[in-house]
Amino acid sequence: MTELKNDRFLKALMREPVDVTPVWMMRQAGRYLPEYKASRARAGSFMDLCTSPEMACEVTLQPLERFDLDAAILFSDILTIPDAMGLGLYFAEGEGPRFKHPVRTAKEVEALPVPDPEDELRYVMDAVRLIRKELNGRVPLIGFSGSPWTLATYMVEGSSTKEYANVKKMMFDQPDIMHKLLDTTARSVTSYLNAQIEAGAQAVMIFDTWGGVLTPRDYREFSLSYMDKIVKGLKRENDGRKVPVVLFTKGGGTWLQDMAATGCDALGIDWTMDMGTARSQVGDKVALQGNMDPSILYSSPERIRKEVATILESYGNGNGHVFNLGHGIHQHVDPERAKVFVDAVHELSAAYHK
Amino acid sequence: MTELKNDRFLKALMREPVDVTPVWMMRQAGRYLPEYKASRARAGSFMDLCTSPEMACEVTLQPLERFDLDAAILFSDILTIPDAMGLGLYFAEGEGPRFKHPVRTAKEVEALPVPDPEDELRYVMDAVRLIRKELNGRVPLIGFSGSPWTLATYMVEGSSTKEYANVKKMMFDQPDIMHKLLDTTARSVTSYLNAQIEAGAQAVMIFDTWGGVLTPRDYREFSLSYMDKIVKGLKRENDGRKVPVVLFTKGGGTWLQDMAATGCDALGIDWTMDMGTARSQVGDKVALQGNMDPSILYSSPERIRKEVATILESYGNGNGHVFNLGHGIHQHVDPERAKVFVDAVHELSAAYHK
Repeated sequence: MTELKNDRFLKALMREPVDVTPVWMMRQAGRYLPEYKASRARAGSFMDLCTSPEMACEVTLQPLERFDLDAAILFSDILTIPDAMGLGLYFAEGEGPRFKHPVRTAKEVEALPVPDPEDELRYVMDAVRLIRKELNGRVPLIGFSGSPWTLATYMVEGSSTKEYANVKKMMFDQPDIMHKLLDTTARSVTSYLNAQIEAGAQAVMIFDTWGGVLTPRDYREFSLSYMDKIVKGLKRENDGRKVPVVLFTKGGGTWLQDMAATGCDALGIDWTMDMGTARSQVGDKVALQGNMDPSILYSSPERIRKEVATILESYGNGNGHVFNLGHGIHQHVDPERAKVFVDAVHELSAAYHK
Repeated sequence: MTELKNDRFLKALMREPVDVTPVWMMRQAGRYLPEYKASRARAGSFMDLCTSPEMACEVTLQPLERFDLDAAILFSDILTIPDAMGLGLYFAEGEGPRFKHPVRTAKEVEALPVPDPEDELRYVMDAVRLIRKELNGRVPLIGFSGSPWTLATYMVEGSSTKEYANVKKMMFDQPDIMHKLLDTTARSVTSYLNAQIEAGAQAVMIFDTWGGVLTPRDYREFSLSYMDKIVKGLKRENDGRKVPVVLFTKGGGTWLQDMAATGCDALGIDWTMDMGTARSQVGDKVALQGNMDPSILYSSPERIRKEVATILESYGNGNGHVFNLGHGIHQHVDPERAKVFVDAVHELSAAYHK
């Protein structure tokens, strides 16, 4: 077991004292980095990049070479689980993810398997093991999964969607079938995240990218209740250290208290709520991760620093803040501006941890 | 002056007693109706439909023939103002609205005129006058505009956008120029809505479709403050009767109290917040319009009626509720399901108005 040299991120998620606020960026390994684009070109398709543990490790580590980040996040896609269920994931150029076999009928839902993480998803676990080895204790590694509801939107629609017509029709008219689909998916996510933890993930995050398209009632019944089951089914320990769990529902600003009640350790916050407001809602129950508008990275270094200062002030003194963007970094951002952001967090946050 | 035969909608917006909850649907004149598609085909382009007062009147009245709606809404587009400013609006098939001349520089912003509603936008005022005449007091007519921030996103980007990169870059790096653009646009919206009121609009609604992509701080500075100016600059009286003003920020669930403080009469509520929660936040300050998930209209008549019942119960007894969808009706909805919805609101709401 390698000693962890920088554990600010894990400490902040457990609301323990740190010297400066830790920071990482959603999608920090991605298309805004020229070295990522070179790796991607060498790999072939996006899925070739995900399914090769060596390539996934390579791109996971790239942003750490450029920026003083406090965590690495596994490079992968949220749709690996439905792909392993046999839905046939592919990426149409410029059109986002697609499934060859969307799930629409009761029979198709009944037939869905719970994939074995060390079999159909072994490439992910091998990537986790390799990244941990290559990180050699430099910073902790975050594992992740999509939420059952978010995965279900792609599984039923077969692609990205604006209206969610098919998945909501199933939810409204055939709630039993939708619950069966979500239950199988939740069991798959639990087993997938536990395998990531066993393979070496030191924190895990559940991305509920599309929970925010639901009414509060439907959110609780069809998204949050399954994340709750997952949180309660996770092992949450690795090498004798607690593995914190972070829940993130984009657009979920009005449901933070419900999310905190699952027993997770932290919530991801998008930029449509002030950190201070979010903190006043959840109290000492959970840590908070967020929440800078990713578009700020298109602006000047001075403006970026000013926004970092505003968010630090909004969160205020004390423990429990992991700085991050409110969503993934945009692909046309200049990497130098990302560096300004990361450095500003460390420099300006010291005053809040005295 | 024709007597208004059904004034439930206006009464509910003023929180006065009504017999049943009034109902209308955002985008009720639209592509889900075969008769609309026929009119559109006859007119030529979408803009041909908007710029012909006769055609705009025809499609405005179509949903009233099918459904027992309590209000008509002017058929038009939110982008008529920037078009009248000279930006050159056109619709690329399947790609949404575009501008030939986006506004990106200080010089371009300085050059923006405030259009004369009875000159460049006379086709809209003629449509309002004609619709009022044809309605003949059957139900009230709603006029509308986009919010300055929402119009600015299209004016700066030149099209729909996912990242808002250009408009946010201007906002972050050149706030003075952005404020100048928003100020000119707000003066244009005020003059445009006042002209609609003079031409006969009996209520007006401001659609802030993209205010929800901002942080709370940026929302207050760059969207809400301009809607506030508009509300304070409106005449709000027509034929001796109060003209209520409705503000609607999609995704604005966490800012309802700030919105209510503008002095508007009602707020539009999307489906990501319960009506009861929204009502408890704004108290007796404003009426509320909303908030059924438009996707429910893909489901069965029983499920639609159940959702109507749930929302009525969530709002509870008393005045101040206008039933609506939380956003525009989707184009693939069966019009018969819209009828189920409208009828269910009238039938099930009577119990709440005893």
